[in-house]
Amino acid sequence: MPDGTRRPGRPRAGDRPGDARQRLIAAARRRFATDGYDRASLRAIAAEAGLDASLIRHYFGDKAGLLVASMQLPVNPVEILRTVIASGPDGLGRRLVEAFLASWDPHREVIAGLVRTTFADAAVVPPTLQVVRGVVVASLRGVLTGKDAELRAELIAGQLLGLAMLRYVRPLEPLASAPRARVADWYAPAVQRLITPS
Amino acid sequence: MPDGTRRPGRPRAGDRPGDARQRLIAAARRRFATDGYDRASLRAIAAEAGLDASLIRHYFGDKAGLLVASMQLPVNPVEILRTVIASGPDGLGRRLVEAFLASWDPHREVIAGLVRTTFADAAVVPPTLQVVRGVVVASLRGVLTGKDAELRAELIAGQLLGLAMLRYVRPLEPLASAPRARVADWYAPAVQRLITPS
Repeated sequence: MPDGTRRPGRPRAGDRPGDARQRLIAAARRRFATDGYDRASLRAIAAEAGLDASLIRHYFGDKAGLLVASMQLPVNPVEILRTVIASGPDGLGRRLVEAFLASWDPHREVIAGLVRTTFADAAVVPPTLQVVRGVVVASLRGVLTGKDAELRAELIAGQLLGLAMLRYVRPLEPLASAPRARVADWYAPAVQRLITPS
Repeated sequence: MPDGTRRPGRPRAGDRPGDARQRLIAAARRRFATDGYDRASLRAIAAEAGLDASLIRHYFGDKAGLLVASMQLPVNPVEILRTVIASGPDGLGRRLVEAFLASWDPHREVIAGLVRTTFADAAVVPPTLQVVRGVVVASLRGVLTGKDAELRAELIAGQLLGLAMLRYVRPLEPLASAPRARVADWYAPAVQRLITPS
């Protein structure tokens, strides 16, 4: 049967298991670049890959997961945040700061480049900003109780971003070289203040 | 007497009072651009302006004050920080966040441009970063007591920077449009945690 006539959603006969995933990632890159993250629909991405949209949920969980996968980051913020948040709001400030530093200290150039790109061009909304909003803010908001959860989640994202700026992008000493535990000792309570304000 | 032979430090006969100040600013811009902020000496700047170095202290207080003046910012962070810090560490988090928002909310495009420039080019150390280090961090460090004052001052600078990123440079809602008092209500305690950690 010619390729063009087969029904979408079925892996091709010769496909290895990873092929559908790679085709979805390739289609997502094209659609995110063309339509932007918000307007690109999972249906359109799946159609472009010649696959069923349910496979996106299967492989990536949701649209944000697909976005993160399409960026080929050295760490997966979706998985890290899921782990860190799973234990609830108590001590989350500490776990968050420690996980952030443990993730990015070994990849300083990568995150420096990402932050630079994110804030360099005012006209384009870059994928990293979508990760901040769709992954970091969204995950944090889910674990915050009380008033202004979205605002507080954004302020926490701002705290992590500011930390990245002065530790990785424009390193200031002693912050850039301080041991992770010492940074966490000071910064975690400041982050926790937005998680459990009482 | 020909211009080239007169002694430096004396205002020229026809100078209005502001002229010496303007000549120092012009010389500072050239020397900061050529030598960088750290290596440019006050003596060299004064000499280039044909004036005595003591006039820099008279007009600008110190090198950081001269830098800020040379940037023609719509607000003067040196003066704002001096006022905010003068009342001591109690409640400083609130005064800092409120002054930051009151200063920059009316000049969103200016600070967005400054932050973008600061973090766009890895090779150049831009004047804004010198302001962060030489004005913001230095002023805060002066008012912090206890351990790791420099590290904590940098983390506070990071908090303000992160706030600027998501309120001005890459506006996320609701943070970008939230009333200043509401932002301060949440963020001030998180900043205060680094000022008086107990």
